[in-house]
Amino acid sequence: MTPETSIAPGGTLGILGGGQLGRMLALAAASYGLKTHIYAPDPESPAFDVAARHSCKPYDDEAALIRFAQSVDVVTYEFENVPRRTAEIIAAHAPLRPNAAALATTQDRFTEKSFVAGLGIPTAPFAGVGSEADLQHALREIGRPAVLKTRRFGYDGKGQVMIHPATDVADAWRTLRGAPCILEGFVPFEREVSVVAARGVDGSFAAYDLCANTHRHHILATTVVPAGVDDATERKALAIARRIAEALDYVGVLAVEMFLLRRGDGEELIVNEIAPRVHNSGHWTIEGAETSQFAQHVRAVCGWPLGSTKRRGRAEMRNLIGHEVDSWAELLQEPGAHLHLYGKARAQPGRKMGHVTRISPEHAHPGEPV
Amino acid sequence: MTPETSIAPGGTLGILGGGQLGRMLALAAASYGLKTHIYAPDPESPAFDVAARHSCKPYDDEAALIRFAQSVDVVTYEFENVPRRTAEIIAAHAPLRPNAAALATTQDRFTEKSFVAGLGIPTAPFAGVGSEADLQHALREIGRPAVLKTRRFGYDGKGQVMIHPATDVADAWRTLRGAPCILEGFVPFEREVSVVAARGVDGSFAAYDLCANTHRHHILATTVVPAGVDDATERKALAIARRIAEALDYVGVLAVEMFLLRRGDGEELIVNEIAPRVHNSGHWTIEGAETSQFAQHVRAVCGWPLGSTKRRGRAEMRNLIGHEVDSWAELLQEPGAHLHLYGKARAQPGRKMGHVTRISPEHAHPGEPV
Repeated sequence: MTPETSIAPGGTLGILGGGQLGRMLALAAASYGLKTHIYAPDPESPAFDVAARHSCKPYDDEAALIRFAQSVDVVTYEFENVPRRTAEIIAAHAPLRPNAAALATTQDRFTEKSFVAGLGIPTAPFAGVGSEADLQHALREIGRPAVLKTRRFGYDGKGQVMIHPATDVADAWRTLRGAPCILEGFVPFEREVSVVAARGVDGSFAAYDLCANTHRHHILATTVVPAGVDDATERKALAIARRIAEALDYVGVLAVEMFLLRRGDGEELIVNEIAPRVHNSGHWTIEGAETSQFAQHVRAVCGWPLGSTKRRGRAEMRNLIGHEVDSWAELLQEPGAHLHLYGKARAQPGRKMGHVTRISPEHAHPGEPV
Repeated sequence: MTPETSIAPGGTLGILGGGQLGRMLALAAASYGLKTHIYAPDPESPAFDVAARHSCKPYDDEAALIRFAQSVDVVTYEFENVPRRTAEIIAAHAPLRPNAAALATTQDRFTEKSFVAGLGIPTAPFAGVGSEADLQHALREIGRPAVLKTRRFGYDGKGQVMIHPATDVADAWRTLRGAPCILEGFVPFEREVSVVAARGVDGSFAAYDLCANTHRHHILATTVVPAGVDDATERKALAIARRIAEALDYVGVLAVEMFLLRRGDGEELIVNEIAPRVHNSGHWTIEGAETSQFAQHVRAVCGWPLGSTKRRGRAEMRNLIGHEVDSWAELLQEPGAHLHLYGKARAQPGRKMGHVTRISPEHAHPGEPV
């Protein structure tokens, strides 16, 4: 650690964004004796409730952003859609970690896919689409089924439409209202996996074991670790994440979502998406690993050494979406169920309200009492 | 759980006291989706930094106490020296858990020892002392060496003086400035142990494994679990804690400090002190048990079911006192060392600045790499 790049306990971590990720980051920072200052426009941001200070201001309020940056020792973010101008203003007044390039690369699906493909890492076939004519052309190249997605601001399945053989192309194009898009070939994947990993200021790298994810209605439902893939596949996945982190000169925790394809006897990986932040598929690390992804991100952005990513057993994380959170009282009665609630006021459909993690011994057989 | 006695996530936990115990309670409450409101007179209270709301007011400000109690769903405390009148005001406007009787019993060493002895639980010989003549009399009964302690407001060795055979009794009496005192016979104990346990609103009881503690300069230095005592001794210790909790109609986490004496081949326990709150000797539970003592206290005072107290391995907790906290950077480099810092501004001598917990596998042999 060098004094120019590292923050001492007692210092203040600034966080852009006040959702559950910012909240869990703030809790981890507090355990290390740091103060946090949350910047978010929503007055009901759940992270405000656990921070020493908050600024409830829009992301384009230049004066507020400068005051915020000057009040903290380092700034990080909990979401990738931080506007470019916001990141520039912050970076001019405080260290921004991860850097603005990581944001710019990952908040545009076309830029992101081009970056990944440029590293020689497999992706689904893709093409940029700016008009209905582009879309027609791209569909001839890529074939159907394919997925048309807005280049920016998509998450949890928002801003995308599936194009089947029978889909009317003009209709599909109109659905996304003329926003700049990317067309991605549909890949018949067997499973979705993700690597959650961290890179330090000194270039050190530490990945958690590969996560196997399931989704419902395009929202992460469960994560299970270990993922149960071939050792060679797991090593390859971790190497891909490291290559991406290094190419971005990344500092902090990132997640790389991948599709696992089965080709004959072998497993193949293609990269679907990069999240330049702590990630829902890493929530199991709170109880399931020596260092949680939130503590790890704090260590990285403070310029501290990365912690151990060693697992403490087999982990299963389940999201509590919308009214699933109403089961909190039963979950509290289940020994070994670790309940986390995010302090959100209303349980709207599709809203992530909390999660529950269960850890079982490494060598337990299915059905064995633990 | 019944609606009258239980608090739902989204509710607010009020905490009297803003030190590290209040801070760690607030962090645990946040993980369950609760808001916290801290009441403490010190503007530099570290718990303020992680709470949704705080009241920086003296403990005798009746109007502020009423506003505080009315703003929350349940009130708890992180220290036993809450004034009686403060507790009464709070209890008139909100559920106070643990109850005011637990405070009254444990904040006076003489009342506490009389209560414990009244349950038929062994203690050191003791006598109330209100004058130098009382002290002379008590010394003839109890013998020397003995320890003269103020009945109230003592902690970490403050407010006590050892009376050796050569000590001048008048001097000793003057040292404590005429405060009401208790004289305790000095017990040649082999080890200090503690039980950290919880009792729920429904009378359920759950204890962590017995903790073995070492002190330096009267301040807790280390806690090791398991304590390495006979199974029968451990069962007896847990039964004593349960008896005390039940007699107090206690709700929440409490700690019972005991001395372990060796009499011939056997082990004997005597109760030294009761702490009606989460306790330093329970900090290892954050990583070392299924449910941390802080999460457990939140569960209990919210009227929720108690969590599992199962251990995750052998635990060793070491306090970072005063400038010991300067080793934070080295501790961050040690794999498996879980560093906790309390966000206190200045590292004064004797001040608890943080702690570090190391967990090793249950059956590891000393010196074996883990």
